[in-house]
Amino acid sequence: MTAEAKQACADLLAEYAYLIDADRLEDWLDLFVEESTYQIVPRENYVRGLPLQLMLCENKNMLRDRVVSLRQANIYNIHVDRHLVSSVRYLGEESGVHSVGANYAVFQTDQDGQSRLFSVGEYIDSIVVEDGAFKFKDKLVIADTSSIPTLLATPL
Amino acid sequence: MTAEAKQACADLLAEYAYLIDADRLEDWLDLFVEESTYQIVPRENYVRGLPLQLMLCENKNMLRDRVVSLRQANIYNIHVDRHLVSSVRYLGEESGVHSVGANYAVFQTDQDGQSRLFSVGEYIDSIVVEDGAFKFKDKLVIADTSSIPTLLATPL
Amino acid sequence: MTAEAKQACADLLAEYAYLIDADRLEDWLDLFVEESTYQIVPRENYVRGLPLQLMLCENKNMLRDRVVSLRQANIYNIHVDRHLVSSVRYLGEESGVHSVGANYAVFQTDQDGQSRLFSVGEYIDSIVVEDGAFKFKDKLVIADTSSIPTLLATPL
Repeated sequence: MTAEAKQACADLLAEYAYLIDADRLEDWLDLFVEESTYQIVPRENYVRGLPLQLMLCENKNMLRDRVVSLRQANIYNIHVDRHLVSSVRYLGEESGVHSVGANYAVFQTDQDGQSRLFSVGEYIDSIVVEDGAFKFKDKLVIADTSSIPTLLATPL
Repeated sequence: MTAEAKQACADLLAEYAYLIDADRLEDWLDLFVEESTYQIVPRENYVRGLPLQLMLCENKNMLRDRVVSLRQANIYNIHVDRHLVSSVRYLGEESGVHSVGANYAVFQTDQDGQSRLFSVGEYIDSIVVEDGAFKFKDKLVIADTSSIPTLLATPL
Repeated sequence: MTAEAKQACADLLAEYAYLIDADRLEDWLDLFVEESTYQIVPRENYVRGLPLQLMLCENKNMLRDRVVSLRQANIYNIHVDRHLVSSVRYLGEESGVHSVGANYAVFQTDQDGQSRLFSVGEYIDSIVVEDGAFKFKDKLVIADTSSIPTLLATPL
């Protein structure tokens, strides 16, 4: 049972990365339940308990708005994302909420075909089952990289 | 059953990366069936449907030839490859052909011990079972990185 | 059985990476048995059979000492580590010792929030079960990157 839940959580994270990289952000929204939060926090702020965030969506509608605005912003910042996500650490389940952690690295490739490291950090996620599918309830991205070289246009 | 097939595909990709990194390209050939294809395509060409490829082997003999010529070319481009492959997305099985996707990053280290990002991109693979072993039928490498800084000597 | 052992080894490597990245090196020590070895060797020395190592701990007490001295050294080299570990290659079990291999990339982020590639290489590990927990008996880190840009303060 735990092994299956763990695998399902790992598959969700792989799908999350895939849909961002494929620029299918509208489908990516389907990985979140309505009452979900999505945050990107620089690691130093997270450690110090500072409230400053790079992105904060307190429900799925805010996340939808974000995707709409990304569709406009991306006209000026065309790149391809590529995620590598480490093997998922399954931290347990309580009242139907699965807790997992993982490391990520995101590489970006510009229109000249040059790739570079964009951001590394950590995911801390709460995952629930809705209509038989594992989905994000709360996704927290703690970015080690706070010196973002370009506009933070896409989610991490 | 699906879980086992998925794991076997993931193991094949791990072995694929390992054998390239260990410079055991002759053993690496064993991971492909005779009637196999191996392609490396820059992502922009793939998206636009352009035929230009960085590498195209339409059967295993072409891949064998490639390895032979690599053994000569590598005299002039000595480096160590290091692959990181993301967790494998298992897309299903049809008529004995398993479809999987994964992300990769390849780092290269030169003779001075300096490492740098060489290529990131995506694998889209068709995998079959031959004599009880999972092997590549078609391997498509879509490289985000099209601005390859050195001779593309080894497979990705 | 093999699938479970493989998963347990993979979990151990994920925990290993997590505890370094979280700077919980005292807890990280718990992943090793008393009679354990920990070595970091530049790849070229490993290949040539040269004895020079970047780090050599021949038992857990030496590793404990190392952690103590790291707590002092890190005052002058403050950074955050971030590991990405590839899927683990399970090589088999003999007399209770499990052998696994994996690739790693370590990124470091400095106090200005700038991240960069720090080291890539390979793990070759011997893992045993002690009191029901999988732990490292011998951990060998073969670093492709031998030109370490800063003091090698933390384990890889």
